[in-house]
Amino acid sequence: MPSPSLLLSRRDLEFQLYDWLDVESLTRRSRYAEHSRETFDDALELSERIATRHFATHNKKNDQEEPWFDGERVHTVEEVSEALGVFAESGLLAAAMDEEFGGMGMPHTVATACFSYFQAANVGTSAYPFLTLGNARLLCAHGSPEQVETYVRPMLEGRYFGTMCLSEPQAGSSLADVTTRAERQQDGSYRLFGTKMWISGGDHELSENIVHLVLARVPGGPPGVKGLSLFIVPKYLVAPDGTLGERNDVVPAGLNHKMGYRGTTNTLLNFGEGAHHRPGGAPGAVGHLVGEEHRGLAYMFHMMNGARIGVGAGAMALGYTGYLKSLAYARERPQGRPLAAGGKDATAPQVPIVEHTDVRRMLLAQKSYVEGALGLLLYCSLLVDEQRSAATEEDRARAGLLLDVLTPIAKSWPSQWCLEANSLAIQVHGGYGYTREYDVEQHYRDNRLNPIHEGTHGIQGLDLLGRKVVQDGGAGLRALGDAVEETLGCAEAAGGEAAELARTLRGYWERATTVTARLWESGDPQVALANSTVYLEAVGHVVVAWIWLGQFLATLPRGPQDEADAFLLGKRQAARYFFRTELPRTAPQFDLLAALDTVALETDPDWL
Amino acid sequence: MPSPSLLLSRRDLEFQLYDWLDVESLTRRSRYAEHSRETFDDALELSERIATRHFATHNKKNDQEEPWFDGERVHTVEEVSEALGVFAESGLLAAAMDEEFGGMGMPHTVATACFSYFQAANVGTSAYPFLTLGNARLLCAHGSPEQVETYVRPMLEGRYFGTMCLSEPQAGSSLADVTTRAERQQDGSYRLFGTKMWISGGDHELSENIVHLVLARVPGGPPGVKGLSLFIVPKYLVAPDGTLGERNDVVPAGLNHKMGYRGTTNTLLNFGEGAHHRPGGAPGAVGHLVGEEHRGLAYMFHMMNGARIGVGAGAMALGYTGYLKSLAYARERPQGRPLAAGGKDATAPQVPIVEHTDVRRMLLAQKSYVEGALGLLLYCSLLVDEQRSAATEEDRARAGLLLDVLTPIAKSWPSQWCLEANSLAIQVHGGYGYTREYDVEQHYRDNRLNPIHEGTHGIQGLDLLGRKVVQDGGAGLRALGDAVEETLGCAEAAGGEAAELARTLRGYWERATTVTARLWESGDPQVALANSTVYLEAVGHVVVAWIWLGQFLATLPRGPQDEADAFLLGKRQAARYFFRTELPRTAPQFDLLAALDTVALETDPDWL
Repeated sequence: MPSPSLLLSRRDLEFQLYDWLDVESLTRRSRYAEHSRETFDDALELSERIATRHFATHNKKNDQEEPWFDGERVHTVEEVSEALGVFAESGLLAAAMDEEFGGMGMPHTVATACFSYFQAANVGTSAYPFLTLGNARLLCAHGSPEQVETYVRPMLEGRYFGTMCLSEPQAGSSLADVTTRAERQQDGSYRLFGTKMWISGGDHELSENIVHLVLARVPGGPPGVKGLSLFIVPKYLVAPDGTLGERNDVVPAGLNHKMGYRGTTNTLLNFGEGAHHRPGGAPGAVGHLVGEEHRGLAYMFHMMNGARIGVGAGAMALGYTGYLKSLAYARERPQGRPLAAGGKDATAPQVPIVEHTDVRRMLLAQKSYVEGALGLLLYCSLLVDEQRSAATEEDRARAGLLLDVLTPIAKSWPSQWCLEANSLAIQVHGGYGYTREYDVEQHYRDNRLNPIHEGTHGIQGLDLLGRKVVQDGGAGLRALGDAVEETLGCAEAAGGEAAELARTLRGYWERATTVTARLWESGDPQVALANSTVYLEAVGHVVVAWIWLGQFLATLPRGPQDEADAFLLGKRQAARYFFRTELPRTAPQFDLLAALDTVALETDPDWL
Repeated sequence: MPSPSLLLSRRDLEFQLYDWLDVESLTRRSRYAEHSRETFDDALELSERIATRHFATHNKKNDQEEPWFDGERVHTVEEVSEALGVFAESGLLAAAMDEEFGGMGMPHTVATACFSYFQAANVGTSAYPFLTLGNARLLCAHGSPEQVETYVRPMLEGRYFGTMCLSEPQAGSSLADVTTRAERQQDGSYRLFGTKMWISGGDHELSENIVHLVLARVPGGPPGVKGLSLFIVPKYLVAPDGTLGERNDVVPAGLNHKMGYRGTTNTLLNFGEGAHHRPGGAPGAVGHLVGEEHRGLAYMFHMMNGARIGVGAGAMALGYTGYLKSLAYARERPQGRPLAAGGKDATAPQVPIVEHTDVRRMLLAQKSYVEGALGLLLYCSLLVDEQRSAATEEDRARAGLLLDVLTPIAKSWPSQWCLEANSLAIQVHGGYGYTREYDVEQHYRDNRLNPIHEGTHGIQGLDLLGRKVVQDGGAGLRALGDAVEETLGCAEAAGGEAAELARTLRGYWERATTVTARLWESGDPQVALANSTVYLEAVGHVVVAWIWLGQFLATLPRGPQDEADAFLLGKRQAARYFFRTELPRTAPQFDLLAALDTVALETDPDWL
């Protein structure tokens, strides 16, 4: 028997996709009629194989020999290029795109599962195609047919890579302060001038061309985010027939050297500083407007919402592989004797450390975080599929509302708790886990980025409490309440332990809704938002408890073979762990929120 | 005005040492009669200056150019040697030693504060003298006069460095499984054979000699920890007149490459494998027995208990400097506008991020962790001084009981929460905090070691719940209860907010004691210990709340100038934060413990 993958658990993926979410039922809809469980399984199999053979194999090297800049070009270890070539040839990138753009129209839910293998194997290398996919999707939604033809097709073929250029040195979380300037030319194109910061994949020699999507300001527009427009700025200009022309005036000014996630180049990019000024041409980096002027941020959010869920998926994948690696270590490493196996009797043989209760506690915690996060992300991905393919307008709208309200949680919860899982994976390894000889320290370093990029943890809290649960008169929260209620109803009908878990969850869900109301009844947005991060974390835990209840229900025995199925028994045990140890963490958080605590708000900066 | 140190807050150190703990009163005892507030302040001043000028300056280099092994020698960047030379000349190492050994007999409390500056500045380089000091103290307590003369004196002069050699590749947490063998020779010396793992400072060229303290087994002794003896194994043999002789047969087999703490060499050491076998001599590494055979572990615990508090101090120091650096960053970095300053009005100027409530929340949390941890460690250090100098036998015994019960908390609490502080320091910096251009990512990596070495987090939980709170009929816990009660009494007498905080803490302390009783009444040690880590964390939080109440009381205004003192206002605000946001975290933990939860205990390894 081949050793099981240490990237993700295939059994768990199949359980969540088929037994819990019934993704197979999507194939009865016309949009996914070409698909079947076989095409899904084939894609999972292919992903696992390529991720294992071509991505996991250089994950450490990618970390140890990070990209370097010789002043002109950015270099990466050769395995990155080789892996991305195999990935492009596999057709997986296009598989997730709609058929009208040459894709295979695979459900987003299955694509998320497939891509998670690559993130688990090598989050640095997989960032290139995933940024490219986000970029391509944005252009499919908002670009002109010519832009799709010129830029999206080569991206889906793996010839061009994409980036998103939002931040600037003085404008990170505050996009209202973006100053990059885009001057309109007589030919309808624009010339861009400015500096962008934190650009992942901002420069490299891995693709024929790089398609930057850049937020910039057309002079004369309104201040703040309402004056931002979106531009395509290719590294090399592209002629109408698709041949590559001269180098555009966009150049890397340096690389950021990070704690982790080192395999992904991260650059400071200068636009229009004159490095590639064409004699006789107007100065500036040539850009092409996407959609209309001043609507750039709305378009960018199309990419950003997907990217936020992608960040959550990356965090989950790093947590998941760390869990599997620490579990494998715990089953092999002999050390000491628990009380039940002789305790201090040194003449008894040592036992594998998984026999120690505290080690199992750390493994159960990891399991509850990573399988809970996987569930949350697959559920959100299913909402994308529902938005596209549900039978009624009402169902599609409902999926959209749910997706909106869940996005900050899908980004932040895995970023927080799967990082914690990686910390526990190190802890299970003991001193060995702290060395670079094992993988888990890198996962921990890589994962620490996730609460920062694509909107910090704090920004997600403001988004959830300040926007998502109040917009449309609270429709998003009500939609979530309906979805929770549906699961509670099923659990109560199932009776027994499921009904008990439902009773517990109902109490916490009611707490979440009454606290939300209380915060906004305070009448002062400053007070309401003073602990928005605490709110995000508490609601996130309740949401994941609901995801766990759904999974618990899907494990209920349908026959004697299920009664003794170790996988199902473990699933239920992790759900129990989450309900008994994790969910109650939210009680003091809700208490703090309900008390309208203002300790941080009232702290004078001089007191710190 | 010179910019304030970003290592530790001198004002806070002075507040905690003098206003809260009244360390100055120690100088009225004969043991410390040579000292005065002036000698204490001079030592703090000297420590801050040397740490700033000679340690902080190569902290990053020490990380980026970690020690390397050429197959024979271990090399370090030259600044390490230079810094340690300055440190040795300063007399600070000897200052902390008793006068009978040539020291200045400075109170341990003041020495802890002084050494924290070095740990904050450069935890990697400062590990060498601190390991040496621990080694010297052990030999002063348990070595022969000749051993003290031969090994301790050169250590206090900074000519020899020390190590502690416990772990082996197959014996980390389980010291019962140590197999290194020590064969008795006719001349009274021993010859050692075996391999030791994770030896910090295990080899280098920084000192004339290295004094290894090695746990090994004399054949014929009992199995398990009761058969361990302790040996001095010098790198170079030392002649009776103190001249260095030939190389002993102890050689590095390789270095461990770690995620952080890279400035401290960490080696695999081979004893007696024949690399330096002397022709005609008996094979093996020459060792000298410390004290009596088979009592090695008890002696080693002398060093280990001090080392555990030292680990806590290192964790605190890393957390503290990260807090100060993120605070400085938050005061300088402009980004966005809070609601009160125009919100989304992009024409208003950006504000320093400390103006954002969520950033202040992250700073307050850090402040509550690092100043709470500093208080805990200074309090434990004061117990060491009390053990040595209190007027009555009863007081000395009480200090010993308290120190025993608090040691696992003093080791684990800062390791957990000051690591969390470092994570928040990164978060305050945003993307910049994730780059190696700033310091905080290194502090985070360095600090991640602390929950692992000198007894893992889980081991501390077993030590607290399985040993410390039950030994001597629960005398340790009762002594702690008396100390808590004393503070509660003062707070109740003070009335107002102090009395309110006391009421809150009383509830949690009662919860801690009833839960402790309930766990042991269960009658099954496996059940009692199933969540010992949760117990450790909950009791730790309650203990730090008590430390915070003590500090709160010390801030109470003694006049109008105190009313407007930003430092005192901030101290009280951090105490409020801890009581409102942190202390309530323990409620669900105590609930879980009181319910005698067995989810982890009952999890079959096959279910994971």
